[in-house]
Amino acid sequence: MALIVQKFGGTSVANPQKIKAVAERVMGYSRKGHRMVVVLSAMAGETNRFVDLANQMQAIPDPREMDVLLATGEQATIALFAMAVKEAGLDAISLLGDQVKITTDRMHTKARIQTIDAALINRHLDAGKIVVVAGFQGVTEDGDLTTLGRGGSDTTAVALAAALKADECEIYTDVEGVYTTDPNVCKNARKIDRISYDEMLELASLGAKVLDIRSVGFAKRYKVPVHVRSTFTETEGTWVVEEDKEMESNPVSGVTCNKNEARITISKVPDVPGTASKIFTPITSQGIVVDMIIQNTREGKLTDMTFTVPRTDYKKTMQIMKKVVADIGAEGVTGSDNIAKVSIVGVGMRNHAGIASTMFKVLSDEGINILMISTSEIKVSCVIEEKYTELAIRALHDAFHLDKGPAKKKPAKSAAPAKAKVAPKAKAATKPKAKSKK
Amino acid sequence: MALIVQKFGGTSVANPQKIKAVAERVMGYSRKGHRMVVVLSAMAGETNRFVDLANQMQAIPDPREMDVLLATGEQATIALFAMAVKEAGLDAISLLGDQVKITTDRMHTKARIQTIDAALINRHLDAGKIVVVAGFQGVTEDGDLTTLGRGGSDTTAVALAAALKADECEIYTDVEGVYTTDPNVCKNARKIDRISYDEMLELASLGAKVLDIRSVGFAKRYKVPVHVRSTFTETEGTWVVEEDKEMESNPVSGVTCNKNEARITISKVPDVPGTASKIFTPITSQGIVVDMIIQNTREGKLTDMTFTVPRTDYKKTMQIMKKVVADIGAEGVTGSDNIAKVSIVGVGMRNHAGIASTMFKVLSDEGINILMISTSEIKVSCVIEEKYTELAIRALHDAFHLDKGPAKKKPAKSAAPAKAKVAPKAKAATKPKAKSKK
Repeated sequence: MALIVQKFGGTSVANPQKIKAVAERVMGYSRKGHRMVVVLSAMAGETNRFVDLANQMQAIPDPREMDVLLATGEQATIALFAMAVKEAGLDAISLLGDQVKITTDRMHTKARIQTIDAALINRHLDAGKIVVVAGFQGVTEDGDLTTLGRGGSDTTAVALAAALKADECEIYTDVEGVYTTDPNVCKNARKIDRISYDEMLELASLGAKVLDIRSVGFAKRYKVPVHVRSTFTETEGTWVVEEDKEMESNPVSGVTCNKNEARITISKVPDVPGTASKIFTPITSQGIVVDMIIQNTREGKLTDMTFTVPRTDYKKTMQIMKKVVADIGAEGVTGSDNIAKVSIVGVGMRNHAGIASTMFKVLSDEGINILMISTSEIKVSCVIEEKYTELAIRALHDAFHLDKGPAKKKPAKSAAPAKAKVAPKAKAATKPKAKSKK
Repeated sequence: MALIVQKFGGTSVANPQKIKAVAERVMGYSRKGHRMVVVLSAMAGETNRFVDLANQMQAIPDPREMDVLLATGEQATIALFAMAVKEAGLDAISLLGDQVKITTDRMHTKARIQTIDAALINRHLDAGKIVVVAGFQGVTEDGDLTTLGRGGSDTTAVALAAALKADECEIYTDVEGVYTTDPNVCKNARKIDRISYDEMLELASLGAKVLDIRSVGFAKRYKVPVHVRSTFTETEGTWVVEEDKEMESNPVSGVTCNKNEARITISKVPDVPGTASKIFTPITSQGIVVDMIIQNTREGKLTDMTFTVPRTDYKKTMQIMKKVVADIGAEGVTGSDNIAKVSIVGVGMRNHAGIASTMFKVLSDEGINILMISTSEIKVSCVIEEKYTELAIRALHDAFHLDKGPAKKKPAKSAAPAKAKVAPKAKAATKPKAKSKK
């Protein structure tokens, strides 16, 4: 029988009825003999309520106290869940982040997990209990409560699965898995049966919201098979697992987009050492994160410098740049916040030549101008005008035949679970010293 | 400068505005140089909300999980409070029951404090912080969360004051202090300036609700001066302190009543060894708490046995007694749930003869029949018909001149605080091993 970690988000446990339904689902596994660890988020709406209360107390709520407040959300859910299991006649116990010794760094409201002590959970599993762990929360070495930031419960679940050497980690969500692209944009979008950790990392960083990027990093590091699936159906979802031959046969696995960036161009920058530093230090010192950077040499000793920043920081960055342009003797600064970054991702790119040029041709054929390009080993991103986003996604999805995919080649049903269930146990140490994100 | 522990209940911190107002009050002390420890309850209404949620999950909510759920209430309040202090420019830190190492026994939902480790609080006080501690909660030696039951935050405050050797413990409430009797019943009721621990224990056990009885037990054991006062005024309240000469000059300190009991009489009980056990074991084995027991010998080998139980257990007890009567060969069982227990309390009774007989005469003069009598060294209780309760209280209050009291003899204003502020520090060990109640 397997040791399974299951994580349910806030919408899955939004009220007593939903908590009972989730408990029923978990107990189904338990009755089959599986050892079950459940990770829960706060009931949907609770976190917003706490943030609202905190904002009434302090203009910028103290991060340490914010964590004390936020951590109550998961604490309430796990207690209610354990009651539901006990009412149904099985045994359960709720455990908080500090009880499980999920230690983190001191970065309140966005802490990172450092170690997990699996001993207490194992003891309760041995006693036949369903162990219900509060997601999203940890504790510093000094005993202060911390929280892991948005998507933190995913990370809790995967980190627990690693520490417990679980057979699998199931992430329950309100969609059926990871799709080749957003089904709301492209009606041919197909659920991906199996995807590699690296591809999932790229998709998560490029805008896909289904899995928190840190949890994917954990899964990759400790080789935890992650199954992303729907709370509301029994259908198999998407397995996020180690790369294999079959995945590599597929040049592109998914198309994604990000509309949260803005583009800024500084024209005719004198091409002398130290210029880049003069441009970017004033931005990054304000905590603004620069994503893509592209430099095009013009005639003579002049270059154009283009980069993207989060759209919410666009106006501030433009103000800073007006001063910088004068300082460095550039011609001027232009920008736009009506852009989108469209990306294709796939481990198969490594073995398939010409994927990037196919992408450029597809966009060109649709009359879409490419403003910026950025590539990695397994992805190509193009910045385009925002209004073309959906058109670009559908064209790329069609061009790379993502509606077909490898599912045709072998029976979809049996492939993923069979593989995962015979997968060797994760090789994580009992106390993973993990710096999650990358 | 003094070390002061202040406790505020749920109605005092019911919403962000009220939390801010309380924080202002505490900061006033802090600005004067006092070392401040604040104990807070859950926001009014939160506990009921949690109980309601729990009842939707499990017919009889699991006590361990109930405590995990309930403990979130205080956790939220202390975080919000600390934010309010920081917003105002002072420093504060919130601490949970397990962080302060308030260890308790394993009696979930009504745990008793065993030890408190004052070290962490002292360190934060030394650093100039207002320390904000979650009331009502503790932790077992195994690390399970517990709660202390109704009025538990009072106990947290007094126990902390003992462990910290605080100069005083202020319990803030929605009344101005402890009164000679209920002001709603007797318009001459007078606020008591100073009352002894023993008198307060009797008053609390006899129906006065202003202070939790376990907190008074703690205060007595560790000689913590407790100041019961109003959140809404600056007026001095009531000091609960060690007995002194002045208190002893007063035969009666207060009159109180309890309408939550019912009386049961078993008539013509064969007066043989073992009968009492046969009567009470079937009741107490059902968890029913018997309060007063009176046995009157009749002619020959027969007695009448009368006792009181909580009114909510009246019907159940009567059913049990019908069987018992048959078993032991008694004549029959009668009872009434229209009774009230009226009590007078005062340490001065020890030195004044005839207090009890004065009480009986006062009731008799009003035409009130006494159904049962129970006495201790410092109290006399009479069970009467419920309808006479208010009449009895007013008559006793007048007869013992409680509207005057010792306040006439010396200036009320200066007496209490002056005395308390020079009081020697509590002699509690850092880790009080205390079995609170009595």
